[in-house]
Amino acid sequence: MKFVLFIILFGLNAVLFGQEIIYKTQDSFTIQGKVSENGPRFTRIDPLKYSRLPQAVKKRLAYPAGLFVHFLSNTTQVNLQWSTKEISHGVNMNGIMARGMDLYIKEGNQWIFAGVARPTDQKQVSNFTMVKNRDNSLREFLIYLPLWAEVTDMKIGIDANASFQDQKRLFKKKVVVYGSSIVHGASASRSGMTYPAIIERNTNYQLINLGVSGSAKMETEVADMLKDAQDVDLFILDCVPNASPEEITERTQHFVKHIRRFHPKTPILMIESTIRPISLFDHEWNARVHQQNERFYNEYQQLKAQGDVNLHLLRAENLLGSDNEGTTDGSHPNDLGFSRMVNIIQPAIEAIFNDE
Amino acid sequence: MKFVLFIILFGLNAVLFGQEIIYKTQDSFTIQGKVSENGPRFTRIDPLKYSRLPQAVKKRLAYPAGLFVHFLSNTTQVNLQWSTKEISHGVNMNGIMARGMDLYIKEGNQWIFAGVARPTDQKQVSNFTMVKNRDNSLREFLIYLPLWAEVTDMKIGIDANASFQDQKRLFKKKVVVYGSSIVHGASASRSGMTYPAIIERNTNYQLINLGVSGSAKMETEVADMLKDAQDVDLFILDCVPNASPEEITERTQHFVKHIRRFHPKTPILMIESTIRPISLFDHEWNARVHQQNERFYNEYQQLKAQGDVNLHLLRAENLLGSDNEGTTDGSHPNDLGFSRMVNIIQPAIEAIFNDE
Repeated sequence: MKFVLFIILFGLNAVLFGQEIIYKTQDSFTIQGKVSENGPRFTRIDPLKYSRLPQAVKKRLAYPAGLFVHFLSNTTQVNLQWSTKEISHGVNMNGIMARGMDLYIKEGNQWIFAGVARPTDQKQVSNFTMVKNRDNSLREFLIYLPLWAEVTDMKIGIDANASFQDQKRLFKKKVVVYGSSIVHGASASRSGMTYPAIIERNTNYQLINLGVSGSAKMETEVADMLKDAQDVDLFILDCVPNASPEEITERTQHFVKHIRRFHPKTPILMIESTIRPISLFDHEWNARVHQQNERFYNEYQQLKAQGDVNLHLLRAENLLGSDNEGTTDGSHPNDLGFSRMVNIIQPAIEAIFNDE
Repeated sequence: MKFVLFIILFGLNAVLFGQEIIYKTQDSFTIQGKVSENGPRFTRIDPLKYSRLPQAVKKRLAYPAGLFVHFLSNTTQVNLQWSTKEISHGVNMNGIMARGMDLYIKEGNQWIFAGVARPTDQKQVSNFTMVKNRDNSLREFLIYLPLWAEVTDMKIGIDANASFQDQKRLFKKKVVVYGSSIVHGASASRSGMTYPAIIERNTNYQLINLGVSGSAKMETEVADMLKDAQDVDLFILDCVPNASPEEITERTQHFVKHIRRFHPKTPILMIESTIRPISLFDHEWNARVHQQNERFYNEYQQLKAQGDVNLHLLRAENLLGSDNEGTTDGSHPNDLGFSRMVNIIQPAIEAIFNDE
């Protein structure tokens, strides 16, 4: 009965959009955006290789934030069938960013937003048409995976008579971004609206998202993972919000030096914590945020004094703008906040590459 | 047992924040932002008075979008205890905007975001501290109610020794905004981030939110409700997205003229539909949106030709910006989109008032 209903709905689907659909299964496309190619298909790292990582970090890195698929096609529609392990998420997130996907199509030199795949509420299996009724011009398509849910399966539906050519290396330059929930993407509205993803589309640099919400505390095991990254052009350390002031003093130099042993000359950009909007009135939060940034800055100065000429630091001033409106919950950027962060962080990255 | 636990938790709460809390119950404060004062406390209209409204419209108007509480206090904290009828919402919304609340504090002439009340996931009863550890200066506080859930109870917790003075009429000028889900606030990140709420804080004009998601179709019963509004300085009709092209042609003149019988000289601002980002690639959506706007514009021109000198129209061009990134799902503005709408709609409102 269910199967019959599926056939009827499937047929209806094909008729409604005027095109038969075929589905490309997960073996037909490459998942890009990883720090290395090993490990399960839809996770950011190989949890077996890095089994010593703190459990909370491993859990976060199982979410495919920043991972994407890139293909060439002349399809008039993109339908997505996918499954997530999680069916819920935090109240400062929406379902589309947490469990859904985000589609861009390239026009000229620009990636243009085309549509989202809305997840089915409270169900693991979802099916959604991201774009339809487009002309059949040959274009590059870019689909960002969800930010806050493990993906267990993914099929891309296109016109049965359309071309499909998987692409294996989309972006130039390799930037590894280690950070907190802000890097991870809370509270972006879609998975392509994190600041690393926006800068990626703007610049064509690949920004590998290693945001681990709530758990970016510069543990040695994390430095061990980062040091393995190959062909890195820039490391970004945006991990101040999660570490206590004491942890920042204790761990920052050790963390940077551990990476340096394997990447002696690679530029490293340290970014201070955004000034949380809740800290404007809450003087305890205010003291904490400023203490975190001050200690991070002190560590930066000591590392510079020791001769690290490829170390850079970005001050937090106005990262979220000046009107206190750049977050969803007082800590996590909304899309307004992320767009303001991009306006400051992107030029800082470009300046580092232009100086080389 | 529950009572004992409550006492223990309550005591702990007071100790943690260093201040005893007292709760102001709903009789202690005025719910502002309504088109008229009658009806249930937390709904936008009186459903008994307007029983002939379409069911879907009544349902939406039971959500307190745009309603707010305004009080003077020297409290160092604001804790909120509240209940919502709904516990879920659409995947293009987060829990904070749908079921939570949003706090601003006035500094000088400016309303500054101070914190949110996060709803408890999957529960009707919530309790959250919106701000704490502030100094005890006397300030104006503004709390926006949720956008997408009926509120059944609300208590405001402040320091036991703090002053509390309910305010009854916050904003000047009365602007009644009738519209679709975009006016209603999908997909704002917080209830204070709808475009009417942002303009309200920026200008001190009261923008009464009559956004009725999916159901803004200019029915006679809605015009009947609008005509009853007293002392209105401006009507905004931002209802194009929900009405079919045919409905726009059939209903617009009738709708405007029905309001005009009771408000012969009040300025009316008609706003074209935002160009939905999904319509950039989907040529059926594209044709529909442009047809809706074209027909709305035609009706505007005919009304103008009939001599309505107080009728204005705002074209849709670039309401969401020019990069196609201003929405969460291809239709509903994210905070970036709302901030861009404000940049265009606010000056249009100010121009109307300045010309008077």
